Amino acid sequence: MIESQDWRGRADSLDRTDPLAEFRGLFEFDPDDPLVYLDGNSLGRLPRATASRLASVVGREWGSRLIRGWEEGWMELPLQIGDRLGAAALGAGPGQTVIGDSTTVCFYKLASASLDLRPGRDEIITDIDNFPTDRYVLEGLCEARGLTIRWLRGDPAGGPSLSDVAALLSDRTALVTLSHVSYRSAHIADMAAITEAAHAAGALTLWDLSHSVGSVPLALDADGADLAVGCTYKYLNGGPGAPAFMYARRELHGRLRQPVWGWLGRRDPFLMDPGFVPADGIRALLSGTPPVLALSAVDEGVGLVAEAGIDAIRTKGIALTSLAIELADELLAPLGVRVASPRDPQRRGAHVALAHPRAAELCAGLLAAGVVPDFRRPDVIRFGLSPLTTRFADVLDGVCALRALLAE
Amino acid sequence: MIESQDWRGRADSLDRTDPLAEFRGLFEFDPDDPLVYLDGNSLGRLPRATASRLASVVGREWGSRLIRGWEEGWMELPLQIGDRLGAAALGAGPGQTVIGDSTTVCFYKLASASLDLRPGRDEIITDIDNFPTDRYVLEGLCEARGLTIRWLRGDPAGGPSLSDVAALLSDRTALVTLSHVSYRSAHIADMAAITEAAHAAGALTLWDLSHSVGSVPLALDADGADLAVGCTYKYLNGGPGAPAFMYARRELHGRLRQPVWGWLGRRDPFLMDPGFVPADGIRALLSGTPPVLALSAVDEGVGLVAEAGIDAIRTKGIALTSLAIELADELLAPLGVRVASPRDPQRRGAHVALAHPRAAELCAGLLAAGVVPDFRRPDVIRFGLSPLTTRFADVLDGVCALRALLAE
Repeated sequence: MIESQDWRGRADSLDRTDPLAEFRGLFEFDPDDPLVYLDGNSLGRLPRATASRLASVVGREWGSRLIRGWEEGWMELPLQIGDRLGAAALGAGPGQTVIGDSTTVCFYKLASASLDLRPGRDEIITDIDNFPTDRYVLEGLCEARGLTIRWLRGDPAGGPSLSDVAALLSDRTALVTLSHVSYRSAHIADMAAITEAAHAAGALTLWDLSHSVGSVPLALDADGADLAVGCTYKYLNGGPGAPAFMYARRELHGRLRQPVWGWLGRRDPFLMDPGFVPADGIRALLSGTPPVLALSAVDEGVGLVAEAGIDAIRTKGIALTSLAIELADELLAPLGVRVASPRDPQRRGAHVALAHPRAAELCAGLLAAGVVPDFRRPDVIRFGLSPLTTRFADVLDGVCALRALLAE
Repeated sequence: MIESQDWRGRADSLDRTDPLAEFRGLFEFDPDDPLVYLDGNSLGRLPRATASRLASVVGREWGSRLIRGWEEGWMELPLQIGDRLGAAALGAGPGQTVIGDSTTVCFYKLASASLDLRPGRDEIITDIDNFPTDRYVLEGLCEARGLTIRWLRGDPAGGPSLSDVAALLSDRTALVTLSHVSYRSAHIADMAAITEAAHAAGALTLWDLSHSVGSVPLALDADGADLAVGCTYKYLNGGPGAPAFMYARRELHGRLRQPVWGWLGRRDPFLMDPGFVPADGIRALLSGTPPVLALSAVDEGVGLVAEAGIDAIRTKGIALTSLAIELADELLAPLGVRVASPRDPQRRGAHVALAHPRAAELCAGLLAAGVVPDFRRPDVIRFGLSPLTTRFADVLDGVCALRALLAE
């Protein structure tokens, strides 16, 4: 028996009483493709409002206002959306967050800037299981500057712990940079404690919030984080390849110099004067011309998170992942699937890693069956449970489809 | 008398016989705002096809295909559009052009990469009147690496000449980087000759094509250019803040290492393996996740240039700027306006700089009169004459409006 009546009844009941259920109606769903989409942590769904916002930005703003658009709001988008995001999801006061380039470029800029603030220190601490682009960027910076990466090599089903970090910290450490939520295991790192330890050793912290933002509340100001970046196309539903955000705590402004000295990061860029003088505040992190179309899409995604409330989103995220783990224990563990995410909901983001030796093949089978998970080598099936768009019934459907494949 | 009957008749006749006249119908025009738009070299107009392309990419691709879009074409967009652009407008064979980050970030990546190829050389040659973001990026690189900029200080109504460059070249020169068309004067630099001289001195060349691409034919392969970047939101009509392109000649692939080692520039990025290994070919210049919405808009703009043909665009561009200069000489010179662009059409891009001490105030007056020029400090009124969307009558209207303001 694939599914007991109890599970279905429970999932349906959870959906009926879900206070965020109405938000699903604010997103597009293809009626001809009743997908069980469990990959909103890789690419979030399309908010209905985004299509009309983009049509308006394209047709009315670009098409009709043309160059005048820059003085009619476009130029303010990076900081304005940054502030909105900071308030809605980052625990960041105004003037510390800006939407910029790709996540990779933003990470490069902040990592490089942080290293400049710690001359003479020659080590970076990060996790061997950190998201690849972060690791590669750090390798590039280390090669260019003659620095060394000290790799955290914890349990891949967990994530970097305070004691792991503390064991590597020294007066050689320039930077500790970690994903707040691990892209593979969903482990939540202890931002406050790790930041405090890093500071005690004289190092700075740079947090990658790509798998946190919009699903797990953050308290960047309160936790003392120095720098952060994050992706907007996952739980923020900003669209494929949407621009990322950067956070820099106010105390660092003025001293922090990012390496890409573009005109939009200059004081009074349109004077086009000789000599680069960084702009005041967070604007100094900008480089090139803001991507207006993409920014507008991000704005809509951020707006939905603000409207739903990050605490309500978190509550549902925990309920979704808890159900997934319960189901995995009962229906999948007997068939060789192991939960590879933390069992403590307070230490777990909004996705669940299910390990199985045939994960690659099983993911292909799920996709063919109309369930979209994500495969993470070598053996992880990742179910991303985006609280604004995922139903409890979807979790059950995904688990049942996996069970059916395993039982074949 | 503001306007003689002869000028109006001539402009109308040029419009009637313009072989590109029909292209204007492929762009959006606001019927309620009969603007004389002479700023397509700052932000190009909206192609009609772009609005529907974006609606389809958003609604059908993102909305319905979701994460599957990456395997259904999105991942290929940066190289595919790059090749299209290379063939249509750059004189670049396939596999050497890619659409990436903002112009500023692309310029940073290529400038940095070129410096790495010339270790031990400590000078960069550029123009004091180069576009600000290029100058600022170079200043940042020089500060980080202990290098010196050797500034070309030519006639601001002209641009960098071979002899100016030759006078600064030495065995200390790592890089010569210039705008092909000057953003202020529209002067066209001699790419082939300057590149040859740079190579003879052992230096590399990096060309900023922002004010050339889509208006002046380029021959990057034939001219021996090493590297180039350019903007897609001017004559390519890619939309506000659209991503830029990078060109790197094939001989450099493999040796060229750009500084932002992101996952999309890695061989087999989705293996997410330890250790950065650059991708083969031009893909190594990529860093983060491609901006799909913005790329789709760029594709439409590039398609229109390909359809019209860069030679036909150039012919009309010369005719437009020649008319503007004739008009300026007859109608504006007596009122104190000086043509500050090259008079030789072969050395002039598709805009015209008109110098007047009250340029700032005159630009504000033009804007109020429904004519959109661009002001470039301290004294330049810039008329950008985008051949696919600007009529000869617009040139006359712009000049007449300026004359009316001056005659007040």
